[in-house]
Amino acid sequence: MGPHPAVAAIRLAVRRVLHDVLTEHQTDPAPARDAHTPLVLVACSGGADSMALASALAFEARKLPVRAGGITVDHGLQNGSDTRAGEVVARMTALGLTPSEAVAVTVGREGGPEAAARDARYTALDAAAERHGAAAILLGHTRDDQAETVLLGLARGSGIRSLSGMAAISGASGRYRRPFLQLDRQTVRKACVAQELAVWDDPHNSDPAYTRSRLRHEGLPALEKALGKGVVEALARTAQLSRDDADALDTWAADAETRVRDEAGALECAKLHGLPPAVRRRVLRRAVIAEGAPAGSLFARHIEEVDRLITGWRGQGAINLPGRVEARRQGGRLVIRQG
Amino acid sequence: MGPHPAVAAIRLAVRRVLHDVLTEHQTDPAPARDAHTPLVLVACSGGADSMALASALAFEARKLPVRAGGITVDHGLQNGSDTRAGEVVARMTALGLTPSEAVAVTVGREGGPEAAARDARYTALDAAAERHGAAAILLGHTRDDQAETVLLGLARGSGIRSLSGMAAISGASGRYRRPFLQLDRQTVRKACVAQELAVWDDPHNSDPAYTRSRLRHEGLPALEKALGKGVVEALARTAQLSRDDADALDTWAADAETRVRDEAGALECAKLHGLPPAVRRRVLRRAVIAEGAPAGSLFARHIEEVDRLITGWRGQGAINLPGRVEARRQGGRLVIRQG
Repeated sequence: MGPHPAVAAIRLAVRRVLHDVLTEHQTDPAPARDAHTPLVLVACSGGADSMALASALAFEARKLPVRAGGITVDHGLQNGSDTRAGEVVARMTALGLTPSEAVAVTVGREGGPEAAARDARYTALDAAAERHGAAAILLGHTRDDQAETVLLGLARGSGIRSLSGMAAISGASGRYRRPFLQLDRQTVRKACVAQELAVWDDPHNSDPAYTRSRLRHEGLPALEKALGKGVVEALARTAQLSRDDADALDTWAADAETRVRDEAGALECAKLHGLPPAVRRRVLRRAVIAEGAPAGSLFARHIEEVDRLITGWRGQGAINLPGRVEARRQGGRLVIRQG
Repeated sequence: MGPHPAVAAIRLAVRRVLHDVLTEHQTDPAPARDAHTPLVLVACSGGADSMALASALAFEARKLPVRAGGITVDHGLQNGSDTRAGEVVARMTALGLTPSEAVAVTVGREGGPEAAARDARYTALDAAAERHGAAAILLGHTRDDQAETVLLGLARGSGIRSLSGMAAISGASGRYRRPFLQLDRQTVRKACVAQELAVWDDPHNSDPAYTRSRLRHEGLPALEKALGKGVVEALARTAQLSRDDADALDTWAADAETRVRDEAGALECAKLHGLPPAVRRRVLRRAVIAEGAPAGSLFARHIEEVDRLITGWRGQGAINLPGRVEARRQGGRLVIRQG
């Protein structure tokens, strides 16, 4: 008798990613330290999704020329988080993951509590990957997490890049992999039950003080009730399509930018005017960022204002942008400069 | 003392659109029958949004070289809908709209009750516009309607075109105009109260049997509770950005299609392979529709399967598509044909 269907599903998802990693590793001109058996780490909080991922990684790695290890990050945000991290290490060790280690981080405040915790976590995971010469780090995000991420991006209203959610492959040289991005959370949870894995419920996940938690427990269920059960899948598909669209438009904008500059490198308003609005706004955004405006503070309304120097010219003055960058129209050219 | 701020807001929105219509009318080489005073109609259900629109149109038209009229569509879906339509005509007449008329339609079944009613309504409005030689028809959709439309599109998961909601200008030669698309529903409702306009609450709007009604009364409020009050605005902005992005990518795909065909007009797989995925999928979609596949039955998964003939070629057979269209790879060419 084969494994439970949910267990088979999570293992298949991990197997596919390990095959990709092995293929890339073999063709990598400068592979990591131990060229013969690449190390793949799982980032494991001890929650259901990442424990399922750890179990599948441990199982599949045995059948492949891959070493499997695990890292848990102690964010130090709750009393006893160090004890908890120790327990997660013990569970990863029991699954056969070597190395299994806990890394303690200090969470700052920048960008709010969720963003600060995420930044600290990825910095620690990057460092762990470097230290161990890991070929990849697996993350347990599911299709449901992806749907939540798309809705969070939608709430920003800043265009299709923010609708594109999380990538299946991301980070420096594609270090991070998300094998479960097309699996629903329920399947992953069932795989834990079927394997009798002890899992930890992070109280943050059900704390209504967190936007994502409110979305998970109230927003998405209400949306499903109104729109039908396929919403999570539709959101995840939207993420993929939006990502591809945003990539294509970025390519176009990068190419267009070279063509709308004159010999001296100045942006020609007449040529900008001839671009489709979606491409023109991306060219303007690139140009403004290149002059020093911080991408995170640059909103759609800033770019719209700069765009009106091209499409709604009536002699308006310089536009002030974040990072003390200024845009003005001058003799048929768009001049963008940091003050 | 000027008008109530909400009344001022709806009038300003209508004034802007009337100025656009007048400018276009004057530059139109073949203007409608009465070249001197174009007729602008309002489509009015008697509900708050379209009654507010009717009042603003009547008010603004008096100050401009514009004749203002109104059409109400009797869908015949409820007992006494004809009496209701008569009342709406009386209210439009009282506002000074000439002509004011009711048009009875028969609602079919195609595409479900909401789509069938919409189809019948637009057919009747088109006919009324032709009959009266109207330069434009104003529709009362607000920013909140736009947000709902984006979420309905999101639930389809079919990409950014379905996220682009309703256009401010649409229909044959830009006949339909939506002056309130950037105004919130609350402002429009306040304008009705401030002007003591009698309005009719369509029971469909609060009937949970309708998806849009569930979204309005349960889905969106829950999403706002989770994500904050700016959700409606963010969704409306997403619509505009997505529309521009989708337009740009459609332009690119139309252009790319001419370059990936050989002298005989066949699609070359190697050239298709070189396109960004977002552009390639649009080229494939265009090609499949051109061979007779009905656009409405063609889903993302169909195009993905055709795409695998290009990006994941392992000798697979012909792909069957809606409308008896078939796609196969043959000698480095993609052959799409109706069987």
